[in-house]
Amino acid sequence: MSRIHIPDGSPFGPDNLPYGVFSAEGGSRRVGVRVGDTVADLSLLLDDPVFAAPTLNPFMAQGPRRWAEARVRLRAAVEGTVPKHALHPLREVRMHLPFEVGDYVDFYASEHHAANLGRLFRPGQEPLAPNWKHLPVGYHGRSGTVVVSGTGVVRPCGQRKAPDEAAPTYGPSRRLDIEAELGFVVGAGTALGERIDVDDFAEHVFGAVLVNDWSARDLQAWEYVPLGPFLGKSFATSVSPWVVPLAALEHARVPLPGQVPAPLPYLRGGEDWGLDVDLAVEWNGEQVSRPPYREMYWSPAQMLAHMTVNGASTRTGDLFASGTISGPAKHQRGAFIELTWGGTEPVTVKGEERTFLLDGDEVTITATAPGPDGARIGFGEVTATILPPR
Amino acid sequence: MSRIHIPDGSPFGPDNLPYGVFSAEGGSRRVGVRVGDTVADLSLLLDDPVFAAPTLNPFMAQGPRRWAEARVRLRAAVEGTVPKHALHPLREVRMHLPFEVGDYVDFYASEHHAANLGRLFRPGQEPLAPNWKHLPVGYHGRSGTVVVSGTGVVRPCGQRKAPDEAAPTYGPSRRLDIEAELGFVVGAGTALGERIDVDDFAEHVFGAVLVNDWSARDLQAWEYVPLGPFLGKSFATSVSPWVVPLAALEHARVPLPGQVPAPLPYLRGGEDWGLDVDLAVEWNGEQVSRPPYREMYWSPAQMLAHMTVNGASTRTGDLFASGTISGPAKHQRGAFIELTWGGTEPVTVKGEERTFLLDGDEVTITATAPGPDGARIGFGEVTATILPPR
Repeated sequence: MSRIHIPDGSPFGPDNLPYGVFSAEGGSRRVGVRVGDTVADLSLLLDDPVFAAPTLNPFMAQGPRRWAEARVRLRAAVEGTVPKHALHPLREVRMHLPFEVGDYVDFYASEHHAANLGRLFRPGQEPLAPNWKHLPVGYHGRSGTVVVSGTGVVRPCGQRKAPDEAAPTYGPSRRLDIEAELGFVVGAGTALGERIDVDDFAEHVFGAVLVNDWSARDLQAWEYVPLGPFLGKSFATSVSPWVVPLAALEHARVPLPGQVPAPLPYLRGGEDWGLDVDLAVEWNGEQVSRPPYREMYWSPAQMLAHMTVNGASTRTGDLFASGTISGPAKHQRGAFIELTWGGTEPVTVKGEERTFLLDGDEVTITATAPGPDGARIGFGEVTATILPPR
Repeated sequence: MSRIHIPDGSPFGPDNLPYGVFSAEGGSRRVGVRVGDTVADLSLLLDDPVFAAPTLNPFMAQGPRRWAEARVRLRAAVEGTVPKHALHPLREVRMHLPFEVGDYVDFYASEHHAANLGRLFRPGQEPLAPNWKHLPVGYHGRSGTVVVSGTGVVRPCGQRKAPDEAAPTYGPSRRLDIEAELGFVVGAGTALGERIDVDDFAEHVFGAVLVNDWSARDLQAWEYVPLGPFLGKSFATSVSPWVVPLAALEHARVPLPGQVPAPLPYLRGGEDWGLDVDLAVEWNGEQVSRPPYREMYWSPAQMLAHMTVNGASTRTGDLFASGTISGPAKHQRGAFIELTWGGTEPVTVKGEERTFLLDGDEVTITATAPGPDGARIGFGEVTATILPPR
């Protein structure tokens, strides 16, 4: 038996305890918890076969009472002594997609981002559509191409047409971009015809991950009228390997910045699910942006209530993401198209002027949130390298 | 042992042999084939445990060589004598969703439909967006709410705002509609970064189903700018229980009506996957429309090539649908919003003037296609009743 070493100031202390799926050399996939820089095998730590599954889905499907109970036992276990063979140094394990994704929905919940994109995609028109302040605008993405951090992203090919070109051409995207987002994972689903009340958010959502919703802006601009983004997004969406339980974000809860006009009653309440999560975007190792989640207009509780108000069912593993997180300041923008204003205002990265992504570029998004007593809650990172087109 | 009785002129003769998932009283779900009005249990007929699965996915994942081989054996089996206990009268079994849906994509491939919707949703503008004749426009739908024929459809609630209203209101949809479509089921998937050539359609697609893509037009009209349809569609999508193998549609293949301008090279070829499938829409038992699939502008081979040209992976069970099938004539329109021109030109159904769906209405879509020697290939039906809002 041994105690788990937690480095001073680690954002993976006993107040966090995020869940992931790992494999150690030669072993099968199983559920682990990150404590400091150690991964503990939960099937051994808590002696429960639900954690020997290759995804978090069976555990998440057990529901909120069980999540709370496991968290209490887990905290006691990591603060005591644990069997040595249950522990693996983080650098020696491989992390996998932590859950099997049901449906993937992407929202558009940052007013700053939506207004910036409106100006860039529809110059001369009102930047926000008339519906934007009445409902959290969203759409379905491709769940089959959600990949775990570390998976290479092949530059997509497709049709693109610049405004000054007469006809579209085919080829690799020339405006490959990121979107820094927070994603929420449904644990306890609902049947067809039911809806999830805005106040029942924590009964259904298991936790949160970082999301990089890679975007080929040239493909997107040409294809998206009238049915929305499709191939400009569906080639890859990266998520961080650690799912931070909602319970670990209690100290991060803040009021929303304010909603005018007041939303319809089914979207009221749930306003205290604003979250003070601080993101950072690194481009080839240089920090280029600090998107603040607390600036988001719509809360994730409102997103979930809206997504199910028509009676759409939810499943364990459904993922819904916030949309790009952008604050009011330029250095708070969570997409390069905004940061470089459509490529017209390059940023300096490692001494070079840059606009969109080049092959070989690496983008890493990290985040932390306040925990109790000045501690920080870490999300880890979502990172990937751009691979050349095939 | 006994011979299977096939009524004269049945569209479920030995040239069709569609696959479905059924359960007989007290039994588990398993794969069956429809022959006449009989369902034959395939795990018994072909003595293969892959057909004892509760979905078609394990069989579909085996790939096209195996599909062809099973079809040869199946045809020989149903034309000979079979064990009596493998046979069930169709009326005595319950049909289930035939496959576990991976991603669900809905296209917009009928020029007549797209132009009609453009006129209705964006009056005074060009009905077709500039991209429409360059690529098959599509978007992702909600795979978790794909349901089998016979499942009741609860009228969805949500936000709607008529053009003359100052603000949106919440309530049940007042413009509930159908979309008569054909859906294609991916059997053999592809890895991330690969693309499916337009000529490799039959290597990957297992078969076709009828689809009713229920649409709440008032929710859709208010929400869909700029990210596309969301809650106006995600409450339910119904599919027929029998998957007609692609091999059964060989005699239905026809050239496309013609594409001007010529599409980019990656969308050329595959034009001979136009399909002469004749649909019929019944509203409370009265036929109101006869949508002709042969009028579709884009072929399903082009849809699949486009969907994967950016390197998006595909999975066994992915479903992509054609979008509403509408011909040039009024009685060939596959959605009520077109048939009644936005509700301004009611149709007579059972002696009553009708525009959109009322609670208790039943809609049934059927289809047949040419087989060899004058035979018809039947798709069966996709039917559902509208239930009151909750």
